[in-house]
Amino acid sequence: MDPRIREHAEIIVDHSTDVQAGDNVVISAPNVASDLAVALHEVIGDRGATPVYLASDSRADRAYLQSVDEDDIETPTHAQALYEESDVLIRVRAEANATEQSDIDPETQAAHTKARRPVQEVALSKRWCLTQFPSKGNAQLAGMSTDGYENFVWDAVNKDWDAQREHQARMVDILDPASEVRIKSGDVTDVTMSVDGMTTINDYAEKNLPGGEVFTAPVPDSVDGEVLFDKPLYHQGREITGAHLVFEEGEVVEHSAEKNEDLLSEVLDTDEGARRLGELGIGMNRDIDQFTYNMLFDEKMGDTVHMAIGRAYDECVGDDREANQSAVHLDMIVDMSEDSFIEVDGEIVQRDGAFRFEEGFEE
Amino acid sequence: MDPRIREHAEIIVDHSTDVQAGDNVVISAPNVASDLAVALHEVIGDRGATPVYLASDSRADRAYLQSVDEDDIETPTHAQALYEESDVLIRVRAEANATEQSDIDPETQAAHTKARRPVQEVALSKRWCLTQFPSKGNAQLAGMSTDGYENFVWDAVNKDWDAQREHQARMVDILDPASEVRIKSGDVTDVTMSVDGMTTINDYAEKNLPGGEVFTAPVPDSVDGEVLFDKPLYHQGREITGAHLVFEEGEVVEHSAEKNEDLLSEVLDTDEGARRLGELGIGMNRDIDQFTYNMLFDEKMGDTVHMAIGRAYDECVGDDREANQSAVHLDMIVDMSEDSFIEVDGEIVQRDGAFRFEEGFEE
Repeated sequence: MDPRIREHAEIIVDHSTDVQAGDNVVISAPNVASDLAVALHEVIGDRGATPVYLASDSRADRAYLQSVDEDDIETPTHAQALYEESDVLIRVRAEANATEQSDIDPETQAAHTKARRPVQEVALSKRWCLTQFPSKGNAQLAGMSTDGYENFVWDAVNKDWDAQREHQARMVDILDPASEVRIKSGDVTDVTMSVDGMTTINDYAEKNLPGGEVFTAPVPDSVDGEVLFDKPLYHQGREITGAHLVFEEGEVVEHSAEKNEDLLSEVLDTDEGARRLGELGIGMNRDIDQFTYNMLFDEKMGDTVHMAIGRAYDECVGDDREANQSAVHLDMIVDMSEDSFIEVDGEIVQRDGAFRFEEGFEE
Repeated sequence: MDPRIREHAEIIVDHSTDVQAGDNVVISAPNVASDLAVALHEVIGDRGATPVYLASDSRADRAYLQSVDEDDIETPTHAQALYEESDVLIRVRAEANATEQSDIDPETQAAHTKARRPVQEVALSKRWCLTQFPSKGNAQLAGMSTDGYENFVWDAVNKDWDAQREHQARMVDILDPASEVRIKSGDVTDVTMSVDGMTTINDYAEKNLPGGEVFTAPVPDSVDGEVLFDKPLYHQGREITGAHLVFEEGEVVEHSAEKNEDLLSEVLDTDEGARRLGELGIGMNRDIDQFTYNMLFDEKMGDTVHMAIGRAYDECVGDDREANQSAVHLDMIVDMSEDSFIEVDGEIVQRDGAFRFEEGFEE
């Protein structure tokens, strides 16, 4: 077995979820990730914890969703009972065919997601980690060779996360106490927002592996200006490119896209909160150096900023602030590697991808 | 997908476990059986039930058992909670490598089995079915080509079980009210036993798929004579051939084997009940026409009889009878296809493989 798989398993067990002797652990992984599942069993056994191994197979899910009558979809209370008795949940994503679920009826899919919500809530109340195994299907989605994609994933995942945490903490120290943030990139993007009273989170690969971003929530009414999201994004299996949003007093008042503008319109019309920003994130994982159509990686790409329309994360919202509420949370990415800067309370803190606390920074 | 896989799934769901709308179902299947797992999801969805899919992977189990300290092995209470909230459990066996667990320490294995016992008890209290998918590893164990083994498994499994139940019921009608049974085969085997007051069960593929036997429990003290088990058997990964047992007043007083006699001695010495018979079974599934080193099939082979030393099944033991108790239950098979007969209360009911209620029977 590739030694990087064992290393990946150790980071999940020791760094991300801190598995201890006596813990009940659920490993959820598809067939194509069975090598990582085997390595996880080895490490979990060594730590004295007790695993249960769920197959998360998109072919099986599709088969169920293709045949079930929408009215018969129920909350899997047996899965809920499993999670309730667990301490740690490890979810490994990997696809043999990344478009396996392309022919599921969206309404059936939505009913399924809704029925599973109570299970999801129990899962999110535990120590959990979502990670990726470099399958051939995901390599294909990224347009990469299998070997090249393996290198990409394990470079991004198998890092010194303590060093990465310290690196990111310097950006948290800038953003957390700040009031106004301005993002400027290229000829179009120039947007300001307040993060006053909000909390900036350092994501150093606990719940998401890879981690590698710091993120906060904008004050909903404070966003003004326009943004061209120059990295593509994937939503419901469809690509939106060149999304352009104009904000006034926090709300999207104009929008367009080069490709699939109708899908973007649909998302913005979901509910009131879908027209406001819920997240501002700064990608800081420089081993993620290309776009792979996988938000778990894309949003942490070095030298990028992402903004999500829709729901804010509660942990980012200060006690005396209101969280933006919405059924959607759609991350969209801006390239910050050149002709760009981030300004915080009037001071430039990143220019052309270099942070103020790094060599090569030019104010 | 091979249409026989879909047929297999329908038999499991409709015949063996009678899945109904609203049922919580657990499917436990290894990677190599994923096609059957997919078909099961399709049929279960169609019936309006809710699946959870457990990966039962012997490589993962081995990895855990190789690394865990025996003292850290605990009952997986999260798996127990899952089973408690379930109505139906479907367990699919299949091996990529049938000797995957050959290097697990037997004591660790025993501790694991013991720790899982409470989970097993919950599982056995539900509607359950154990079946087999024709993997390459199991084909190799049987010494068969992959195609040949697929034909073998699906011929044995995808049957008209209502017709098979009726066929077997004729043997139940003979054995259930009987007192004395005599089994005679070849020059050596000639044994008599009482089944007076015991109950004969018709196995038509509910808990085991394939089914195809009728079985009862002998009165423990009543067994007299000798038996040469001329079909090989597999125990703890080792083969015992030519096992020969001599019974007096129900107890094995002499024994020998051509191969691995020491293992046979070990089993007989487990406890007091291990020297007595716990089961008499008549194999009646004629699509099982060869030995495949898989007791789920072997014991149901047409034109065979099997006797198990050790534990009797409670369901076979009449209210005023005592059940043979033991930690072991080892099935051993006698060929009845030629030079043989079964005699019940002085009447020949099967000769050279033909039953009294069939054409070709010669008294």
